Amino acid sequence: MTSTPEPPGSARPGGRTARNTAAVLRATLDELGEHGYAGLTVDRVAVRSGVHKATVYRRWGGVDGLLAAALEWSAREHDWAPTRTGTLEGDLLALAEDVRHGFTDAPEGAVSAASIAAALASPVAAEALRAFMADRHERSAAVVAEAVERGEVPEGTDAVEVVRCAVAPVYHRLLVGREPVSDVDLRRAARIAADAARAGAFVSRD
Amino acid sequence: MTSTPEPPGSARPGGRTARNTAAVLRATLDELGEHGYAGLTVDRVAVRSGVHKATVYRRWGGVDGLLAAALEWSAREHDWAPTRTGTLEGDLLALAEDVRHGFTDAPEGAVSAASIAAALASPVAAEALRAFMADRHERSAAVVAEAVERGEVPEGTDAVEVVRCAVAPVYHRLLVGREPVSDVDLRRAARIAADAARAGAFVSRD
Repeated sequence: MTSTPEPPGSARPGGRTARNTAAVLRATLDELGEHGYAGLTVDRVAVRSGVHKATVYRRWGGVDGLLAAALEWSAREHDWAPTRTGTLEGDLLALAEDVRHGFTDAPEGAVSAASIAAALASPVAAEALRAFMADRHERSAAVVAEAVERGEVPEGTDAVEVVRCAVAPVYHRLLVGREPVSDVDLRRAARIAADAARAGAFVSRD
Repeated sequence: MTSTPEPPGSARPGGRTARNTAAVLRATLDELGEHGYAGLTVDRVAVRSGVHKATVYRRWGGVDGLLAAALEWSAREHDWAPTRTGTLEGDLLALAEDVRHGFTDAPEGAVSAASIAAALASPVAAEALRAFMADRHERSAAVVAEAVERGEVPEGTDAVEVVRCAVAPVYHRLLVGREPVSDVDLRRAARIAADAARAGAFVSRD
């Protein structure tokens, strides 16, 4: 640890610290993609990134610290935004499609699966996943806010719950039912969430 | 392996084979509950069950075979059935509550989490989870079939999709969002699934 607290990689922007940080976190994601959470080790990450093992331990503490930092870095680097289609149902369908791609495309799919598995095994990883998903939900919620502005759904609609309703059946197939996700499944989920939102089902009333 | 194929534990019912099978699979579930999938080893299961390690390897092949057999055994032993409340919305709420309990009560919660994590790491475990959930879905679907008989929802309603709609947001909070699950969350999920089912949203039309 440096003597003054600072966010990872912020010392000497563009310098050795920033380069090492990017190399280590990129290597962490690559290792996750290839070997999953169970195969993630500091040794492998050190070799792959070319950064000394002692440095990795000092900066990230171990496997869970690496995973948490890699998730946070990945969220910041990608600057993800939801696709706009002009209607709430279309936007929710695009979100549901993103979830399917995020688990079935290589190498993102393996990283997504590894993140869920890691969160089930480690509280540090669980907190990292929670923060990553909270950020995703906040960004996704914009499509519902815009539907409210267009008058498509009523004021007071809980935007995150609308998004959850559209994507949760996709995650359920992928993680729990271990079933394939068809286009029909995606369209059904988006339609039901959009219909319920239009009917005011996500306006708080409990 | 024995010389003729037979289901696990079926040789000499009530005899040593059946007792050993029950002891090993019970020990597998207990180990999963205490140490998770990452901590599951044949050595620990052998010690805990009092069955020789060589026997465990010969019968179940290894960790993934143990997990798959334990899941199948657990499904058969428990003979789970959905709670009936008299209305579809009430029945779906009970199913959503079951999911919350299944992940937050000890020791079932740890076994549930370990099963999801195992499925993300091993194709054998994934197939075991798929079969376990397919059985759960088939049993759960009865509450929707009864709602069709009562005239609450239209003929042709896809029962498993109605159930998925009610429970998926709960799984999403537990596994993906890593958020707590409130009573309000459960009621919202059950209500939206029941409303959509009544409106015919789960009748195939794609």
